[in-house]
Amino acid sequence: MSYLTEDKLAILGAAGAIGSNMAQAALTMGLTPNITMYDPYEPGLQGAAEEMYHCAFPDARVSWTTDIGHALQGASYVISSGGAPRKEGMTREDLLKGNSEIAAQLGKDIRSYCPNAKFVVIIFNPADITGLTTLIYSGLPAGRVATLAALDSTRLQTALSQHFSLPQDKVTGCRTYGGHGESMAVFASTCRIDGRPLTDLIGSSELSDQKWAEISQHVRQGGKKIIQLRGRSSFQSPSHQSLLMVKAVMDGQGYPWPCGAYVDSDDHGFNKIMMSMETSIGSDGLSWTMPQGTDSELADLRDSYQHLVKLRDEVVEMGVLPPLDEWNSVNSNL
Amino acid sequence: MSYLTEDKLAILGAAGAIGSNMAQAALTMGLTPNITMYDPYEPGLQGAAEEMYHCAFPDARVSWTTDIGHALQGASYVISSGGAPRKEGMTREDLLKGNSEIAAQLGKDIRSYCPNAKFVVIIFNPADITGLTTLIYSGLPAGRVATLAALDSTRLQTALSQHFSLPQDKVTGCRTYGGHGESMAVFASTCRIDGRPLTDLIGSSELSDQKWAEISQHVRQGGKKIIQLRGRSSFQSPSHQSLLMVKAVMDGQGYPWPCGAYVDSDDHGFNKIMMSMETSIGSDGLSWTMPQGTDSELADLRDSYQHLVKLRDEVVEMGVLPPLDEWNSVNSNL
Repeated sequence: MSYLTEDKLAILGAAGAIGSNMAQAALTMGLTPNITMYDPYEPGLQGAAEEMYHCAFPDARVSWTTDIGHALQGASYVISSGGAPRKEGMTREDLLKGNSEIAAQLGKDIRSYCPNAKFVVIIFNPADITGLTTLIYSGLPAGRVATLAALDSTRLQTALSQHFSLPQDKVTGCRTYGGHGESMAVFASTCRIDGRPLTDLIGSSELSDQKWAEISQHVRQGGKKIIQLRGRSSFQSPSHQSLLMVKAVMDGQGYPWPCGAYVDSDDHGFNKIMMSMETSIGSDGLSWTMPQGTDSELADLRDSYQHLVKLRDEVVEMGVLPPLDEWNSVNSNL
Repeated sequence: MSYLTEDKLAILGAAGAIGSNMAQAALTMGLTPNITMYDPYEPGLQGAAEEMYHCAFPDARVSWTTDIGHALQGASYVISSGGAPRKEGMTREDLLKGNSEIAAQLGKDIRSYCPNAKFVVIIFNPADITGLTTLIYSGLPAGRVATLAALDSTRLQTALSQHFSLPQDKVTGCRTYGGHGESMAVFASTCRIDGRPLTDLIGSSELSDQKWAEISQHVRQGGKKIIQLRGRSSFQSPSHQSLLMVKAVMDGQGYPWPCGAYVDSDDHGFNKIMMSMETSIGSDGLSWTMPQGTDSELADLRDSYQHLVKLRDEVVEMGVLPPLDEWNSVNSNL
């Protein structure tokens, strides 16, 4: 079996549903044979690793450890789902304090053990804040730390394909930007339904305003439907999509969905935030561009940004993040 | 994205841990874009399917249904994990009656809805009996129905690689034959440790007789260790390995582990049974050959066969399987 690279991938939270799925999917995708699974919960971690051994992936070198230093040492790629999970009825923001503290420690550990990491993907909620916090403390360049933001866009694609009874890939250009929480900006103007602009269809007999509002709201509520149906939060799709992000750095073949990127641009009026933007991923990591949209959509994006600013400032207030004017002294890349 | 085939794969038990993992892994492996997920438990099934949609696999055509007829209609490939699961403390045989009835119905459904199926893999326990029962009622040729048996062999490989502190693929030729339950025959003579015959090492300072007995017993206990560690039975490795079996039919590239095959051979003294043998998988399905081993190992295999004969006869006694002399009238291929 051939792998894209021999570089080490550290999967943090590997005893959990996302992380254990990720170990299997990374090997199935042929990303790298060199995987370390980390979790503080040893029995579940060992059990998940044993399952990988029973899969008998050719040439795989999967190890597991409850020592974060061993896990990160020399890692080129890090994906962390290792926050506290969101339960039914909880908003993503409820998790703010606990998970931002976990993210701060993760950033420090990355700086200590793998300061040359090529790409770090953060997928524990609220990801905009945990990703930002990890970036700041890691000392890495901004393009080396990203958050998973795709699922909002793929949920939009799914809902529209179901509404129009079309194969999913006939629905193109689905985009949400800004925060990953309920304040996200759901764009319609970028979207095509079997080639036809979605904005031409909203308000027609094919898609009433009310139905579009319902779809947008469904997307804003993120994985709520999965929690209701499965009795647990999404784990397969976050695993799959975050591995595709890493794969794009490894193979330079691109990644088709928006990602959470660090944005600090006076030109656009977005400062010191991590949020979903139009992005591309290559061997140098992540870069972003300003989304294209209607005035109303761009106003939604600005509102979403303001919501994130508030969350970020709460985390500064808690003392988990340093004051904004000290970020550059903590991470000279920012 | 390119797939090996456009043929339909029906995944039965797709709301469960194995089945939902299998949908994702089949798409990740690029087997076929044409997947139907079936389960009687609709919310969990829909939730698992939604996760697949959120993965946004290119060109995928994943559907889900609680109607077994719709699920199987026109399917070329069928994998079923849809029995009752084994819980901690239960032997695989405890499941005998309920799951053999499920298997009988599955066989009848295959005959009704996909009588030209190319390959059916049964992975619910006791798999030797459920696979046999499915085969008889399906009317399919013997080589078109197989059971997953690899995990006993990959567990042996894992345990030996851990004992000798070697990469897993330096431990070759790991083989268990006969039943998938605790009566399985664990072969040592086929096995090489970094090129050295395992039989030369057993009883030496490198592997005491007692340690080898412990390893064999661990393997015979199957997934018990996973249940203890994860609080649930294996699901990632059964999913992965059974998809590799299907892949071997699709791509003709072979499959490296023993499978459960229908065996009816006066020459070898094994009649009307399904059990793990030395097997190969190609585009025509599964074929078996007689395992090679020491007299003692072959005696173990015969004991394991006798155990399966007893189980099989219990299922005949229950009225779930027809009397042996009527099998040919139920399935003219046998």
